[in-house]
Amino acid sequence: MYGYEMNKKALQDRLRRIEGQVRGLQRMVEEDKYCIDILTQVTSVQAALRAVGMGLLDDHVRHCVRESIEQGSGEAKIEELMAAVGRIAGK
Amino acid sequence: MYGYEMNKKALQDRLRRIEGQVRGLQRMVEEDKYCIDILTQVTSVQAALRAVGMGLLDDHVRHCVRESIEQGSGEAKIEELMAAVGRIAGK
Amino acid sequence: MYGYEMNKKALQDRLRRIEGQVRGLQRMVEEDKYCIDILTQVTSVQAALRAVGMGLLDDHVRHCVRESIEQGSGEAKIEELMAAVGRIAGK
Amino acid sequence: MYGYEMNKKALQDRLRRIEGQVRGLQRMVEEDKYCIDILTQVTSVQAALRAVGMGLLDDHVRHCVRESIEQGSGEAKIEELMAAVGRIAGK
Repeated sequence: MYGYEMNKKALQDRLRRIEGQVRGLQRMVEEDKYCIDILTQVTSVQAALRAVGMGLLDDHVRHCVRESIEQGSGEAKIEELMAAVGRIAGK
Repeated sequence: MYGYEMNKKALQDRLRRIEGQVRGLQRMVEEDKYCIDILTQVTSVQAALRAVGMGLLDDHVRHCVRESIEQGSGEAKIEELMAAVGRIAGK
Repeated sequence: MYGYEMNKKALQDRLRRIEGQVRGLQRMVEEDKYCIDILTQVTSVQAALRAVGMGLLDDHVRHCVRESIEQGSGEAKIEELMAAVGRIAGK
Repeated sequence: MYGYEMNKKALQDRLRRIEGQVRGLQRMVEEDKYCIDILTQVTSVQAALRAVGMGLLDDHVRHCVRESIEQGSGEAKIEELMAAVGRIAGK
């Protein structure tokens, strides 16, 4: 079982809200809203996605990484974790 | 007319693709995919959104900002632009 | 004259402060400070650098970019500006 | 002993190089270099600092975090780690 499964419902709710925000962006473009207002909304979807990413990472460390360290096989998990952090931090 | 209107169709296509990616994330969570794989996909949606934001900003500078400078009233537009850039660059 | 020259003294003060912060980091490493405390300090130098970058960008838009648009030759400057914004926004 | 101590010399070399880059920025400002060229250099110092931050984080996870998990007291370290990752990823 992966870390996020405990919070699966909350995670799905967040993703559905993000999907709604992206549809909202399409509506703004359709209705010829002002560029800067659309941009502000893009920034807010980005923040919501980053929060999802940080939540997944947090669950991953608390479960998958911790468990494999406890079982003496943390090396590969730590490698993989740091690669993911590097991608999130924009390398 | 705002800058992005010329590219309105391309912009909508990109947003629809992003919406599809977000639904793909929901599917991954539903199917209990591995956290790091979901995270990698989150990072790729973030890159797609950043590209949309940069495209909007580009059109905005080439049209709205340029035109208001040409008409001698660029001050407020530049102020607003720099605030948007600050939000995109993570303040 | 470039945009930042008006604020040249303030800019140099900021850069000297950043230089001092980087020397502070070396001292922390020398004194075997705790990793997370060093990391926090790294993050704060990054914020200071980003502020310098945003200030330079702001001056650049208000002077170089605006002037070349007023003189009818904004195209290349806008191109160059957006490339710089892209680099600051992490691609 | 903290994680980075093994690589202490390499870390100090990197920080000294960054200090040199910041002094280079002061020189560029002094010599009235073109704003965009200074900005490009700012971006490259930011990349160097991010690399230092990621290196510290990596050592921290491989040593401090791993050891405290192995000793059954990982909770606080994981909490602290995720806060640091959040700061690096721009919250």
